Amino acid sequence: MKNLKEKFNKVRQQTEKLVSTLSPEDFVVQPVVDVSPPKWHLAHTTWFFEQFILCKFDKNYQEYDKDFNFLFNSYYESVGKRVLRANRGNLTRPGVKEVLKYRAFVNEKIDHFLENQHLTTEMADLMELGLQHEQQHQELLITDIKYILGNNPLFPTFWESNVKRHTHASLKEDYTEIEGGIYKIGYEGDGFHFDNEEGVHQVFLQPYRFMNRLITNGEYLEFIEAGGYKRFEYWLMEGWEWVKAEKISAPFYWHQVDNQWYYYTLNGFEKIDLYEPVTHISFFEADAYASWRGKRLMTEFEWEVAGKKAEPVINGHCNFVDSESFRPKFNDNQTPQMFGDTWEWTSSAYLPYPYFKKAAGAIGEYNGKFMVNQKVLRGGSCATPADHIRHTYRNFFHPHLRWQFTGVRLAEHI
Amino acid sequence: MKNLKEKFNKVRQQTEKLVSTLSPEDFVVQPVVDVSPPKWHLAHTTWFFEQFILCKFDKNYQEYDKDFNFLFNSYYESVGKRVLRANRGNLTRPGVKEVLKYRAFVNEKIDHFLENQHLTTEMADLMELGLQHEQQHQELLITDIKYILGNNPLFPTFWESNVKRHTHASLKEDYTEIEGGIYKIGYEGDGFHFDNEEGVHQVFLQPYRFMNRLITNGEYLEFIEAGGYKRFEYWLMEGWEWVKAEKISAPFYWHQVDNQWYYYTLNGFEKIDLYEPVTHISFFEADAYASWRGKRLMTEFEWEVAGKKAEPVINGHCNFVDSESFRPKFNDNQTPQMFGDTWEWTSSAYLPYPYFKKAAGAIGEYNGKFMVNQKVLRGGSCATPADHIRHTYRNFFHPHLRWQFTGVRLAEHI
Amino acid sequence: MKNLKEKFNKVRQQTEKLVSTLSPEDFVVQPVVDVSPPKWHLAHTTWFFEQFILCKFDKNYQEYDKDFNFLFNSYYESVGKRVLRANRGNLTRPGVKEVLKYRAFVNEKIDHFLENQHLTTEMADLMELGLQHEQQHQELLITDIKYILGNNPLFPTFWESNVKRHTHASLKEDYTEIEGGIYKIGYEGDGFHFDNEEGVHQVFLQPYRFMNRLITNGEYLEFIEAGGYKRFEYWLMEGWEWVKAEKISAPFYWHQVDNQWYYYTLNGFEKIDLYEPVTHISFFEADAYASWRGKRLMTEFEWEVAGKKAEPVINGHCNFVDSESFRPKFNDNQTPQMFGDTWEWTSSAYLPYPYFKKAAGAIGEYNGKFMVNQKVLRGGSCATPADHIRHTYRNFFHPHLRWQFTGVRLAEHI
Amino acid sequence: MKNLKEKFNKVRQQTEKLVSTLSPEDFVVQPVVDVSPPKWHLAHTTWFFEQFILCKFDKNYQEYDKDFNFLFNSYYESVGKRVLRANRGNLTRPGVKEVLKYRAFVNEKIDHFLENQHLTTEMADLMELGLQHEQQHQELLITDIKYILGNNPLFPTFWESNVKRHTHASLKEDYTEIEGGIYKIGYEGDGFHFDNEEGVHQVFLQPYRFMNRLITNGEYLEFIEAGGYKRFEYWLMEGWEWVKAEKISAPFYWHQVDNQWYYYTLNGFEKIDLYEPVTHISFFEADAYASWRGKRLMTEFEWEVAGKKAEPVINGHCNFVDSESFRPKFNDNQTPQMFGDTWEWTSSAYLPYPYFKKAAGAIGEYNGKFMVNQKVLRGGSCATPADHIRHTYRNFFHPHLRWQFTGVRLAEHI
Repeated sequence: MKNLKEKFNKVRQQTEKLVSTLSPEDFVVQPVVDVSPPKWHLAHTTWFFEQFILCKFDKNYQEYDKDFNFLFNSYYESVGKRVLRANRGNLTRPGVKEVLKYRAFVNEKIDHFLENQHLTTEMADLMELGLQHEQQHQELLITDIKYILGNNPLFPTFWESNVKRHTHASLKEDYTEIEGGIYKIGYEGDGFHFDNEEGVHQVFLQPYRFMNRLITNGEYLEFIEAGGYKRFEYWLMEGWEWVKAEKISAPFYWHQVDNQWYYYTLNGFEKIDLYEPVTHISFFEADAYASWRGKRLMTEFEWEVAGKKAEPVINGHCNFVDSESFRPKFNDNQTPQMFGDTWEWTSSAYLPYPYFKKAAGAIGEYNGKFMVNQKVLRGGSCATPADHIRHTYRNFFHPHLRWQFTGVRLAEHI
Repeated sequence: MKNLKEKFNKVRQQTEKLVSTLSPEDFVVQPVVDVSPPKWHLAHTTWFFEQFILCKFDKNYQEYDKDFNFLFNSYYESVGKRVLRANRGNLTRPGVKEVLKYRAFVNEKIDHFLENQHLTTEMADLMELGLQHEQQHQELLITDIKYILGNNPLFPTFWESNVKRHTHASLKEDYTEIEGGIYKIGYEGDGFHFDNEEGVHQVFLQPYRFMNRLITNGEYLEFIEAGGYKRFEYWLMEGWEWVKAEKISAPFYWHQVDNQWYYYTLNGFEKIDLYEPVTHISFFEADAYASWRGKRLMTEFEWEVAGKKAEPVINGHCNFVDSESFRPKFNDNQTPQMFGDTWEWTSSAYLPYPYFKKAAGAIGEYNGKFMVNQKVLRGGSCATPADHIRHTYRNFFHPHLRWQFTGVRLAEHI
Repeated sequence: MKNLKEKFNKVRQQTEKLVSTLSPEDFVVQPVVDVSPPKWHLAHTTWFFEQFILCKFDKNYQEYDKDFNFLFNSYYESVGKRVLRANRGNLTRPGVKEVLKYRAFVNEKIDHFLENQHLTTEMADLMELGLQHEQQHQELLITDIKYILGNNPLFPTFWESNVKRHTHASLKEDYTEIEGGIYKIGYEGDGFHFDNEEGVHQVFLQPYRFMNRLITNGEYLEFIEAGGYKRFEYWLMEGWEWVKAEKISAPFYWHQVDNQWYYYTLNGFEKIDLYEPVTHISFFEADAYASWRGKRLMTEFEWEVAGKKAEPVINGHCNFVDSESFRPKFNDNQTPQMFGDTWEWTSSAYLPYPYFKKAAGAIGEYNGKFMVNQKVLRGGSCATPADHIRHTYRNFFHPHLRWQFTGVRLAEHI
Repeated sequence: MKNLKEKFNKVRQQTEKLVSTLSPEDFVVQPVVDVSPPKWHLAHTTWFFEQFILCKFDKNYQEYDKDFNFLFNSYYESVGKRVLRANRGNLTRPGVKEVLKYRAFVNEKIDHFLENQHLTTEMADLMELGLQHEQQHQELLITDIKYILGNNPLFPTFWESNVKRHTHASLKEDYTEIEGGIYKIGYEGDGFHFDNEEGVHQVFLQPYRFMNRLITNGEYLEFIEAGGYKRFEYWLMEGWEWVKAEKISAPFYWHQVDNQWYYYTLNGFEKIDLYEPVTHISFFEADAYASWRGKRLMTEFEWEVAGKKAEPVINGHCNFVDSESFRPKFNDNQTPQMFGDTWEWTSSAYLPYPYFKKAAGAIGEYNGKFMVNQKVLRGGSCATPADHIRHTYRNFFHPHLRWQFTGVRLAEHI
């Protein structure tokens, strides 16, 4: 179990590293319901290990604090009453220091557990799930912190990026063709994967072609300047109502100052870079953009086939992921940017695969119960941990949401 | 064009027949946003012919009243400002008599147009679309009237049914198997069909079996009595939130009086009939019921294949449809009740078929822009005009809606 | 009891006369929560007699329809469950004809009761209260009908007015002075009055002067043109928030077309008349106007003293009331327009007089429970029945409401 | 100016003392719109001095940070765009340390200003207003902190109280009579007072008597146990709707655990003390309680006369105020508890006194614009600074609010 212990400590440390530049105040707030306070993420991921490993398998374990189960459960109805999601940002106690103590306490107990306990498959699977879960929250930490800082009129810098900014132009638009026919979909192999990827099955795809890179800020700006946000004919009706009700006129974090476009990045407030992939757009915007271009988004199945063909992922990792720049890559290299730049909205609704079975008990609530009214995203973003980059990974959000690093790639039938 | 004129008159008369038992007051109200006032349906279907036939093709035509375009447009953004949907029920003028005059005026003009004009394909197609559109509103008229009368504490009778009520027991539960493989999906043929059915394409289906009839009120009652509405584990999360927020505990129109279940039907307030198919349930309820049974709903593709196999539809009509009982059939006959009983919720999200292209102009707004956050229903209900019963017809509603005649059939993989 | 019977029949006929030009559809809707459907007014005033006279005192009386108590109660918590106010406009049954039958039935029973029963003081008082109540609803009928028709884009005419429209100019602005000192407030005498006017008591007034007429449309227009709706300094904070949230920029029913101001009157859509008193303004607007003018509104006590001095009311009637023009008088006559033109917003909150005691039972709910967050209005409007015109009458509405005929008169301390 | 400088430093230090036990996280949140984040209070009171003294009178002054004017304005429309009140709790930057630096910076500048500048009356008045303003925010700090901590499921202690808890019984209920006649109302003297107390004027009072102490928790509990929250007849209609909509069944901060009543105090979670004055009740509850007892609240004029008679305030201070226990006193001493226990709801609406004139410019927004839909409270609470305790002080809140220390005293006419 040495590897698991090492991985455990590495993942746990990475979470704390991510919040190392925050002030105590930054840890508390919840400006909108989708965003959770950073200290909640820190505690909730710890609660997961406490609840599903220590309370379950360690007979001598005493809960750190009974109230914490109540405070840091997220949406597991099986595990008792939880703090309503919208109220997370009103809880100033326990504070950050106390939460870090809680983390240290559970870390030590888990270390001890891993050293002294023969792990059954169930235990190892739950440990792995806990780590994957924490990594998902690492991504959410980044996007939630971006929301918290990016909506402050002072626009504070979160992270000094080492990314060297390029200035040369965008890669030419090109397309790769995929033949029609039967393809296999779903996770095959021995590695970790979520229940929603399981159940390898066949789908029939009509022939199509997909773009060799993501749409850039510059290209998206043309859509804005062509009146894209003012012409209903490009929009789904719910998208159009959203545009009007929320007065949407540009990607999230974009601001127009004296006729010049700027955006908030985790490195500060900057002029938008025309050659970077556009990000922080909703499904509605991605779909409207594609419609304006006379093209469309891929289905998640088309994406999976395209991803497998276009950009091999070696040893479960994608070489191109640089998860600490926290901004999508330039598109001047020769890769199709399918992994680790922006999540790509697909046209697919998030639905169960044919043989999907949700697990018994609380773990069964992990994925299955969200399978309505959400869209699938594929590929992973610049905030996604490398372990989560794979062809079969299915992410999902409601179609109006924009606080994740979400972008757009075009496709069409042949 | 004789046939078209005959059909036109028949369809238009049928609409008026449907409202013949209403009082003038019944025509006005809009108790919830999804329900439109009956007089609005009468006027809007007329406006469709006026706008898309007369104004477009008849050079000498003078609009009946300029305000009517403003008042009776529904959601066609291309055709000018429209009365906000939620305000339709506050407009007492023009009254029913005036609306009937408007209908008569447009009827006469269309008759004249059909007699004197050589119809191009475009004209004929738009006429046909207008008729199909009016028939869709006939179904909405029935369900909207049911809402208006069924939420009145006096529970007035709308329609004296000739349906002889049976008392014998339900058909045994049985399943039909479908082999895995490639199937063709989409409308083939020369008849009328909507743009959302177009684009014949192949899908690969894994092997499955589907139930030989719909779930009955009696079976659904067992779910209620087993605490189905109180146990989150059967529900999608948004469904569970809906159950709690709306305090849902039974199908729409059901009332419990002195421990006995009753429902409002268009024939009045009655004890529920245990052997009739359950109806007026949301997708969330259909899905939770299936989950409680350890089964699932079909995808829309599975349904289309099943429908084609199980119950042949002859000459574009299904023999079993009796669209004037306005209640779903008993399940004691030997048919699988796939057509004309209740719309069947499928597990599929409403999305475009691979080669879907929306038409240019206002007609392009007919279907395409609704393709997000809705679920597909198949089969047609007891309120559906016979012309709309076919294997390939795709209906769609948001997953929480219940005022249509919507029911549930189980399936599972083999 | 002959007089009472005559009065009863006269009042009841007047109600029906008022709705004689409506279509059945006009009777049903409730476009906002403050407005009730005309047929509800017809039924509710009838229910009052049925409930508080017939059910209470006539042992042989059989309720016309048990459901009607449920449907037509307004806010009397003592008398059982009532239809939520916001749902009144969704009830199409009973229809107008049925409601008129209900009225006729109760009329006959009351006639019979008055002929055959020796009336105790309690009975006579409740009869009188029922008549006063119905007259209050006559005024509401007019203002509610104005709302229903005036918010229809067709702007239908309700009433052909006999009022001869003047064209000459407005009366010069002048003021009457009132000395400081102790004054008596409250109803004295034997006539009918409401419980909220009771309890004669003394108040001390500081010296003040009040304007000799109401503010005109022309004067109010100057406020609009001076940017009155755009400058927060004239507004109470809640008023300013209301202006911004509701996008208020003129009195209710005013419309600007091609730089010209029009308004909807019950006689149709017209150019505004500069010399008519401004009406359909909220307390917030009246207060902001006064503030812009460097003056203020009167308290209700100042108003009562001013009204008594300025314009004698003879025999319980004011000679100037012409309650069927349904529009406020020109201000070119020599009367100060204190009665029967527009309700005048006072600066007073609606609160109990010192010795106020609410009656036991349901009748006690008539006035007392509304005594918070409302402002007192005095004087009566062109829609107020003559019986309700008196110096001591206290009307009350929330400060943002505008659908009543409400206007403004200035005052200041000396 | 030595005295003013001393007072300035004393007041400023007192504010910081009040927050000395908070964690950085406690300073940030805004759980409801009425509650502001503690760090906002710290900054806003500083902004007041910066804006109205330094920017106005000190020519060499450079604003500490231009963004702070935007961030820390409260409701002064004259002074530029402000952060919407509901968003104050989402701003994590500037943090507490930065805000304390801002305070220190402005403190030093003001000290310097007071030392070197000859103060005009206008300057001295604005300095005094700034201090009074900061003291008002000291009270809000306490009540807002109580809200923040008291709604945390951990119920943290804010302040270790030195108050010795008594156990003996309540003072007997008794009444003091006041004769009818003319009384003078309003602030007379040379001390500081707010514009809303100005304009001495006469009122006529009918004879009345008032209770010799506040209503206790024990007495209020009898109301609860008598079904007070379930019987509409004691409630104003808006109060009754509030009770039902918000599911109110006890004072704010009360919790029933195993049939025993507890409450959150700033000293922690405790059994309620039956002999302490009830507090954290709304006007609606105070009024309903009085109604249940067959009595009533005083008007603010009755209260002012009663307060003057019952409990002399010497040298602008009331001896009984112990503003650091942060809980209302026991009623076993011989004082009538009119000052410094709980704010007492009066029956009066908050309205301008006869000669009220609001000041020009931003300072004119201090009080006048709130004069609608609020009720007057008198007397000061255990959280009120001693300087603010006087007979003529007019506090005001909306009738449903409960987070202030608000209580109830009975009265009646003779």
